[in-house]
Amino acid sequence: MKRIESAKNPQVKQWKKLLSKKERDKTGLFLIEGFHLVEEALRSGVDIVQLIVDEQKTLPPSWNVDNILITLVTEGVMKEMSDTETPQGIVAVCRQCSCEQTEMKTVLMVDAVQDPGNLGTMIRTADAAGIDAVILGEGCADLYNPKVIRATQGSLFHLPIIKGNLEEWMARFQQQNVPIYGTSLQNGVDYQSVTPAETFALLVGNEGSGVRRELLEMTTTNLYIPIYGKAESLNVAVATGILLYYLRHTR
Amino acid sequence: MKRIESAKNPQVKQWKKLLSKKERDKTGLFLIEGFHLVEEALRSGVDIVQLIVDEQKTLPPSWNVDNILITLVTEGVMKEMSDTETPQGIVAVCRQCSCEQTEMKTVLMVDAVQDPGNLGTMIRTADAAGIDAVILGEGCADLYNPKVIRATQGSLFHLPIIKGNLEEWMARFQQQNVPIYGTSLQNGVDYQSVTPAETFALLVGNEGSGVRRELLEMTTTNLYIPIYGKAESLNVAVATGILLYYLRHTR
Repeated sequence: MKRIESAKNPQVKQWKKLLSKKERDKTGLFLIEGFHLVEEALRSGVDIVQLIVDEQKTLPPSWNVDNILITLVTEGVMKEMSDTETPQGIVAVCRQCSCEQTEMKTVLMVDAVQDPGNLGTMIRTADAAGIDAVILGEGCADLYNPKVIRATQGSLFHLPIIKGNLEEWMARFQQQNVPIYGTSLQNGVDYQSVTPAETFALLVGNEGSGVRRELLEMTTTNLYIPIYGKAESLNVAVATGILLYYLRHTR
Repeated sequence: MKRIESAKNPQVKQWKKLLSKKERDKTGLFLIEGFHLVEEALRSGVDIVQLIVDEQKTLPPSWNVDNILITLVTEGVMKEMSDTETPQGIVAVCRQCSCEQTEMKTVLMVDAVQDPGNLGTMIRTADAAGIDAVILGEGCADLYNPKVIRATQGSLFHLPIIKGNLEEWMARFQQQNVPIYGTSLQNGVDYQSVTPAETFALLVGNEGSGVRRELLEMTTTNLYIPIYGKAESLNVAVATGILLYYLRHTR
């Protein structure tokens, strides 16, 4: 088994580069960190290119890693590569997948959500709600940003997450007579007036400016969540949770 | 108007100390940052001890700050005091309030939610849902932590937020026949089986371990949110949003 002691090792520098979007886009690789995420990746059949393990740590005996290249590193090297303050001692280099398009009865479309924690939490929420796919439009945080991955808690491995052009997808849903629900503080209807259905696409948008106007004009109906108190709005991930659980409510 | 140029000025050091919980507890003061939050504080009648303003910024003419001490500072001093990477140029020193107990028909109780972003988002969500008060039990992030305040988006000024002993509050709700809904992944009932009512207390818990067992034994019913996909759980702020909006649904 290979062992690396120095943070100046070219291989370590190469790995560290994957913390930037540019390098991730160029190589088609990304990093995940921590035992829980690596376990989720293994279980989900993610293509793990190699595992980097703190030499003081032990891999769980239940893990099947026979065919995966493992490199041991010192605690110092691990710290250098980690995106967190207290590294767990394991990082995996994974290959980005071009998601197969499975049947999509229920879809979450995301327009320009920029906060990585919000985006990751929304993917986790879509997974929990049993949504079939998430489509990320332009202007969203990078799916492979370590903070996004961490907030998904592994859900990015559980359902197809597609980077795409929202206009094109919406045109396709229109053709298929899939109801598209936009979200808007103005000119919408109370979400509770919609009847949950087998099939829908929900469209949510940017933290500050919401869903782009051009997109809101392409929806079937635009929904709002009533504010009963004095808050101006809800956090976008919380709003997504309320709407997804309502829309799939009675199924 | 007083003007401070040096970050070494003792007054600046004194303000900066308020970024620590210890100093906040000692003095009963806390800082808020940014035009939106200060405006919310002014509008909500918060006791603002003084305003610290970047000398290059202008206060909105609509603000009534006649009776508030204002100190101008340089951009450098402002940067020194700020908890954010791109300071907006305004900070207010505020006095913590001991909330008056208004009538509480609906309450959110929080057991040991540690992430400041989660706690702030939950307070914002409770405000949006029109909940009458939030009770923070032991082990929660500090309400006056700048990250909590930021995530509330000003909602901490909109409803009473009480630090208290959850056992004592639950005993009180029991006496008043207020239904107390705990949340638990095990041994609960689907939240959709509960009938929304005028009055309830919802109890949510720690990100990792959930609500403490002793508390779950004092509830009327414990609820869970079904997971339809492969996620293990929902983010606690998202779960709080789904439950609060469901419980006040038909009112």
